[in-house]
Amino acid sequence: MGVVIALEDKAQGPGITGLLALVAADMDRVNQTILSRTGSDVATIPEVANHLISSGGKRLRPMLTLATSGLCGYTGAGHIKLAASVEFMHTATLLHDDVVDESDMRRGKLAARMLWGNETSVLVGDFLLGQAFKMMVEVGSLPCLDVLSTAAAVIAEGEVMQLSVAKDTETSEDDYLAVIRAKTAALFGAAAELGPLLGNRPKPEVAACRGYGFNLGIAFQLIDDALDYGGTSAKLGKNVGDDFREGKITLPVVLSFRRGSQQQREFWKRTLERGEIEEGDLETAIATLHKHRALEDTIERARHYGAMARDALELFPTSEWKLALNDTVDFCIDRVY
Amino acid sequence: MGVVIALEDKAQGPGITGLLALVAADMDRVNQTILSRTGSDVATIPEVANHLISSGGKRLRPMLTLATSGLCGYTGAGHIKLAASVEFMHTATLLHDDVVDESDMRRGKLAARMLWGNETSVLVGDFLLGQAFKMMVEVGSLPCLDVLSTAAAVIAEGEVMQLSVAKDTETSEDDYLAVIRAKTAALFGAAAELGPLLGNRPKPEVAACRGYGFNLGIAFQLIDDALDYGGTSAKLGKNVGDDFREGKITLPVVLSFRRGSQQQREFWKRTLERGEIEEGDLETAIATLHKHRALEDTIERARHYGAMARDALELFPTSEWKLALNDTVDFCIDRVY
Repeated sequence: MGVVIALEDKAQGPGITGLLALVAADMDRVNQTILSRTGSDVATIPEVANHLISSGGKRLRPMLTLATSGLCGYTGAGHIKLAASVEFMHTATLLHDDVVDESDMRRGKLAARMLWGNETSVLVGDFLLGQAFKMMVEVGSLPCLDVLSTAAAVIAEGEVMQLSVAKDTETSEDDYLAVIRAKTAALFGAAAELGPLLGNRPKPEVAACRGYGFNLGIAFQLIDDALDYGGTSAKLGKNVGDDFREGKITLPVVLSFRRGSQQQREFWKRTLERGEIEEGDLETAIATLHKHRALEDTIERARHYGAMARDALELFPTSEWKLALNDTVDFCIDRVY
Repeated sequence: MGVVIALEDKAQGPGITGLLALVAADMDRVNQTILSRTGSDVATIPEVANHLISSGGKRLRPMLTLATSGLCGYTGAGHIKLAASVEFMHTATLLHDDVVDESDMRRGKLAARMLWGNETSVLVGDFLLGQAFKMMVEVGSLPCLDVLSTAAAVIAEGEVMQLSVAKDTETSEDDYLAVIRAKTAALFGAAAELGPLLGNRPKPEVAACRGYGFNLGIAFQLIDDALDYGGTSAKLGKNVGDDFREGKITLPVVLSFRRGSQQQREFWKRTLERGEIEEGDLETAIATLHKHRALEDTIERARHYGAMARDALELFPTSEWKLALNDTVDFCIDRVY
């Protein structure tokens, strides 16, 4: 779950360029809002917040809010603050996650907790959540508040759920899915649902956008899981192995553990449950995953959710927004190759 | 959701023969239990119950209980009564479903409500549910009681959920999935979970069997949905079109509606929402489904859940039980071709 692919690196591909171009002007306003809303007399707050916010995350979630607002013909300004809220909620989750997971690195930089400590990371996360809710209230849409506050509760629930499956190599695929539905897909779904809600669109369109975001979120996370072990390519990116070193149980491991021999299961238990990682273990892990086609099948599973995301959106007539959102599904999946 | 494929017709195939052979002796005892437990001084009760029970259903659900009991090395006798309970719960659902859906036919015969009336169908369903719980209590396993009573509540919840999506062609795939998870997959999952619970197996094995049954149930239902429109074959079986005539919204329709033109969406609204079905409409419906690859993609979605079912079971060492259960996944999907 720890791989960062800078959007810019992949912007040459056909996948995300359409979306980037369509939301560019709005995204500038979102970024300005984000910067102005991390301001505080308590100097640590903007320092910590900007450390993470300026470190080149994808901003895919706020883009979904902007894009479905465009798709649904919304012409107001509420989507800017809501998109910034979504990014703040996401950033707060990352700050808290790193404390819970005791992570050292985030987006290729030292994690905030390594620079300012765990306490500060937790509290700045809370500050960002508070700012997110303040902005939502300023927009004043109760349906949007409902969707985002529900997502916040679900995400927190997902974090707690993850504690219970953490380091358990016998985690089932269904249990793992329940975690990423809550931890990742819920916010993707909420972000995408805001557009039709702002635009006062009928219920089926609201459900369609939520379904698009939600299933895209699952696909996105599964691809992240595969990327963390290098995806299907032989050459490994710079963040490969983060999940392995942190003992995270992701779908490739779930599949490989189940399909493996007693000896291979013992390998996963030693490395991921007990954290006894030796020289060469990451290479063994990757070889084992390939042997069981665990990465290929994780991608195959992601394709299923990608197809669901695409079909959810089919309710809408053809438009540049719809095309860009469909291309985003391809982008999220194709970045694994 | 109304297609019945007699198991016998397909027994020549490689798919289900292994399972049938392994559970044959136990299944005889389940059938005897079912017959003896429909007895009542109120003559209508055995009449109605046996009308449905003797009409050649698949008994796939109780077979799952027997098979996972075998898989988990259970040597007691509790699985017989629990398997009979599962079949009673299923039969009760069918009786109630036919009343709710105002169905005329069930398993190629007149529905019980056509012969004895709605009131009797509802009450005999309740009687069967009562008998199911009595048998569970006799077995005396609290974990099994927990699983089955939870399933009963979830199924009922699914029925109510279905009322709210009924006749709505704009139903999303996620909403439809939520219905079949509750209406179909929950009982499949519960049935399969009973074996490891009876055998006092560790939690991951319990979760594995539940995951197997649950995902098999989704795959099974999606294939049923595709079969109701003739599957991918040109020649149509005898029950083709039941869902269409009853205005049921199933995944092929969900996909075709979303992918369709305004004119095609109006067709689905007229036929399924308003129930205005004219000569040749079923043929038009099937042609439209094929045009949108809606049946092919429904089967593709089913394959995804089939793969999840198979991987859930991978936790267990190779055995004739495991092989038979894996073949059952193929059987459930391959019957569409």
